[in-house]
Amino acid sequence: MLIDGKPYRTIWVAEDGVTVRVLDQAVLPHEVKVLDLADLESAAVAITTMRVRGAPLIGATAAYGVALAMRADPTDAGLEAAVARLTKTRPTAVNLRWALERMQKALANQPRERRVALAMEEAARICDEDVAICEAIGAHGLKLIEAVAAQKPGETVNILTHCNAGWLATIDQGTATAPIYAAQAKGIPLHVWVDETRPRNQGAALTAFELLQQQVPHTVVVDNAGGHLMQHGKVDLCIVGTDRTTATGDVCNKIGTYLKALAAKDNGVPFYVALPSTTIDWTIRDGVSEVPIEERAAEEVTVMSGRTADGRIESVRITPEGSPAANFAFDVTPARLVSGLITERGVAEASPEGLRRLFPDAP
Amino acid sequence: MLIDGKPYRTIWVAEDGVTVRVLDQAVLPHEVKVLDLADLESAAVAITTMRVRGAPLIGATAAYGVALAMRADPTDAGLEAAVARLTKTRPTAVNLRWALERMQKALANQPRERRVALAMEEAARICDEDVAICEAIGAHGLKLIEAVAAQKPGETVNILTHCNAGWLATIDQGTATAPIYAAQAKGIPLHVWVDETRPRNQGAALTAFELLQQQVPHTVVVDNAGGHLMQHGKVDLCIVGTDRTTATGDVCNKIGTYLKALAAKDNGVPFYVALPSTTIDWTIRDGVSEVPIEERAAEEVTVMSGRTADGRIESVRITPEGSPAANFAFDVTPARLVSGLITERGVAEASPEGLRRLFPDAP
Repeated sequence: MLIDGKPYRTIWVAEDGVTVRVLDQAVLPHEVKVLDLADLESAAVAITTMRVRGAPLIGATAAYGVALAMRADPTDAGLEAAVARLTKTRPTAVNLRWALERMQKALANQPRERRVALAMEEAARICDEDVAICEAIGAHGLKLIEAVAAQKPGETVNILTHCNAGWLATIDQGTATAPIYAAQAKGIPLHVWVDETRPRNQGAALTAFELLQQQVPHTVVVDNAGGHLMQHGKVDLCIVGTDRTTATGDVCNKIGTYLKALAAKDNGVPFYVALPSTTIDWTIRDGVSEVPIEERAAEEVTVMSGRTADGRIESVRITPEGSPAANFAFDVTPARLVSGLITERGVAEASPEGLRRLFPDAP
Repeated sequence: MLIDGKPYRTIWVAEDGVTVRVLDQAVLPHEVKVLDLADLESAAVAITTMRVRGAPLIGATAAYGVALAMRADPTDAGLEAAVARLTKTRPTAVNLRWALERMQKALANQPRERRVALAMEEAARICDEDVAICEAIGAHGLKLIEAVAAQKPGETVNILTHCNAGWLATIDQGTATAPIYAAQAKGIPLHVWVDETRPRNQGAALTAFELLQQQVPHTVVVDNAGGHLMQHGKVDLCIVGTDRTTATGDVCNKIGTYLKALAAKDNGVPFYVALPSTTIDWTIRDGVSEVPIEERAAEEVTVMSGRTADGRIESVRITPEGSPAANFAFDVTPARLVSGLITERGVAEASPEGLRRLFPDAP
């Protein structure tokens, strides 16, 4: 997607064919900075410090991390050490382990002298496949937006999204944003309500940034505002992403998603979830009782970072010293509140049967 | 209530019998600072700059502002000018106009030399009456908490609140917090989930501060978290305040209240609203369509203030330059989501009949 009018992916190989480059998401939206990843360690640190984030992008960065490691030590021991180092970066990310296993498979039993080239190819393939998945999600989601647009010809379609399931979380296009970018390309008049998404502000910082750069009209609102907007007919549909979807269609996503889904249901607003099918956990049937919810550091709630009037990045405490805070990272939206799951194969009903119909080959 | 173990009201007269003192709420929770209001202008500025806030406290400050004005100019012209000046401070606050009208009535046709004393008495009466109302709300709300406690003897009662309907918004005790303080006094084990309440953070800043000072166990959470907490049985009841209640029991309160009420309904958690009956608007029947919702400055969303690690109060921008933001201050929770209205006369069903039963004498 575009930054300052120039097309980017979130991760790419420099012209030297060696250096891996990523956008430093820790300083967005205040600064656009490209990080050079020259070795295994820099790739690992980029993931740990959340300079790259979003499951698909973490997987891709880990894949390139293996390739960078192969340049230094293409032995089996080198491969094993690289995978071990990268596995530790974000222990709970499913895509990370999936990407590392795929890299191991691609390199195992291959001669040392071919491992760098093979690793670079496999990492590039992981990226390209992710782009293709996001484009397919975009094409299927586009039909939903076109249907709304057809009901109000010439009028702006208002979409609400939560957190960042945008191109910055993937390689390009994004998941929840892919239908939005597809609709923009078709010339459908759009406006996006961007939930701030406390405590990490991924909406206010990242989604607003990417929509601004793509020139998609949008407005940032606090997470509290969605219900009011829907009560007053200001939202035509909601599209969010997900970190994990159960076999029954329950959706685990950034904390607060459930509240928006309740408001959508209460006001007859369609509520869609966009996802690559790799995030479906076919072993789980009850999201609320079975999906463990990560609790993160209280400081993400009590301290906020941003840019001062004179341009410095500064952190400020917003709660009294001594007041504890809790930081639940995700919540679960029951399938009954989900209008449909936008996958790379089409839009599935959020039910065991609906998912099975689209994925008869699933485990 | 207590600050550093010492009892305070939010507004009081100094020992000199002249100076009016208020807590400077603009620097809470980072600093406890007392402001001296020595004349009309300082009272007016304290309201405008939100050093005092909360409808009852604004009314009381305006009342004392009239008294201070009478010291400088006890003529009819002086009274008129004072009322005009104070009316302008927060044009939408209902309590402000009510308090000023009451002061005018108390001083009209009274000799100039008695006006200072009469004004001081009337302002004190306004404060004392507010305290009595909050205490009555506390006594009625206590029964609800006692009923929950009886169902889980010895266990902690978990209460969720949104925004600050605490003693800092009133003179003492608060509205939504009054039942909490009453239950604490009874020795009922309590824990309060404090919604951060973006964009102005009144929960994280003010409610957390007052609960900390009263030593009520509490935890600050982002506004997104309430649904997750209720899904997992971590909330026994919700108690919030309100800015305006319709004759049918619809509740206009700080933005995001509606989302919490939806989650409470979805999870069978009782959702109560505490209010002095003066905030009931008997002329309005449909909250969503009839209550105008104030839109405030976008900067409250895009810029956040807090305390830096080295102790300075600093403001930081959290959104990209160029991304617009919208700031709806309130939303409306339909009566069907409200378990009951805790008033100074008792707990009313949120319905025209329920309200009428408690207030047969209402207009």
